[in-house]
Amino acid sequence: MTNNVCGTSRIVGCRFTLSVMSDDFVRVILSAIEETDTSKVWKQTDDVSTCIRGRESHVFDVVKAIYVAAAKTGKHVVLNGTFSIGCPGDSEGDVYMTEDDVVLNEEKARDTTFEVSTQFALYPMNTPTYMDIIADQVNVAKEHGTLTGGVHYATRLDGEVRDVFQTLQESFHNAQEQASHVVMTVNVSANSPSKKAN
Amino acid sequence: MTNNVCGTSRIVGCRFTLSVMSDDFVRVILSAIEETDTSKVWKQTDDVSTCIRGRESHVFDVVKAIYVAAAKTGKHVVLNGTFSIGCPGDSEGDVYMTEDDVVLNEEKARDTTFEVSTQFALYPMNTPTYMDIIADQVNVAKEHGTLTGGVHYATRLDGEVRDVFQTLQESFHNAQEQASHVVMTVNVSANSPSKKAN
Ligand SMILES: [Ca+2]
Repeated sequence: MTNNVCGTSRIVGCRFTLSVMSDDFVRVILSAIEETDTSKVWKQTDDVSTCIRGRESHVFDVVKAIYVAAAKTGKHVVLNGTFSIGCPGDSEGDVYMTEDDVVLNEEKARDTTFEVSTQFALYPMNTPTYMDIIADQVNVAKEHGTLTGGVHYATRLDGEVRDVFQTLQESFHNAQEQASHVVMTVNVSANSPSKKAN
Repeated sequence: MTNNVCGTSRIVGCRFTLSVMSDDFVRVILSAIEETDTSKVWKQTDDVSTCIRGRESHVFDVVKAIYVAAAKTGKHVVLNGTFSIGCPGDSEGDVYMTEDDVVLNEEKARDTTFEVSTQFALYPMNTPTYMDIIADQVNVAKEHGTLTGGVHYATRLDGEVRDVFQTLQESFHNAQEQASHVVMTVNVSANSPSKKAN
């Protein structure tokens, strides 16, 4: 059952939970997923989370689109997700790797803009230089103007939703060029009442 | 600012988001934190997440207690968290390492029991044997009767909240005996309407 070797596929996955702090969270989440074109990714939802797999471009496009669709309701919406690449024994969904890189949800998502607060962490696996790979990505956030500090166990980003997702994708992309197996956790928050109170 | 070396402290941290899918999420979260005795841990909450730091026993005790206090309302409550140990340059809060191991919230949490569904993943950093360390922890879940399968990027646990948290703590504890820097992501879900529908 367990396959303790690294796959060679560069398929990217994101397992995430979308939390909507509202009595009608079911409707908001289902609408957000329905509005999003997921035809270029593998997708599976269970009672705990949703998993999206495919080319890096489409995985980030789809996760961002679902998040934007939910958060544009103005409700407090939080995305907790883990992006992965190079995971052991990871081949299911490889058929989606033959898709082209034309993203399907960028245009619609571009029309919606709002501020998000994010904490993320990169984990390049099985390499002694992992702390340097992580430290390098601070520059990506600086370039995008999204870097707002470090907290214990995470880097903080604030800004327009598109700039924050662009920072996340570039950081992940750069890291996976330097380590075969990379994991990135993200926590993206919009419309938080505590944010407004600060 | 960045310190690219590993600290020697065995302080454990958990950065988590507690999501309550309800219009009165603010009240539920604040009550849950207020009900919990956090006097033996370092604690900081910002608008995105909460960070708890201290001895392993107290960090797990406090996170579980906060979760139980929120989920016992019967509302759909999700905990997304990252437990860490051996993180670079990690010394703030070391004063809490002098506490004894007498946990403060176990008794109260024991009175409340409900089922949770969980997906978690272990990431032992900077070691070529990380996949073996991860695979070994499947036995912990089997012993506790909580193992219900593997999904992409995670292991699934189902069961009483106390058994699931015990599985998580033991898995984390075992892994950090074999790798200096260990990260564990957890997603704990209770009272999900999709679960009931399954
Ligand atoms: Ca209501």
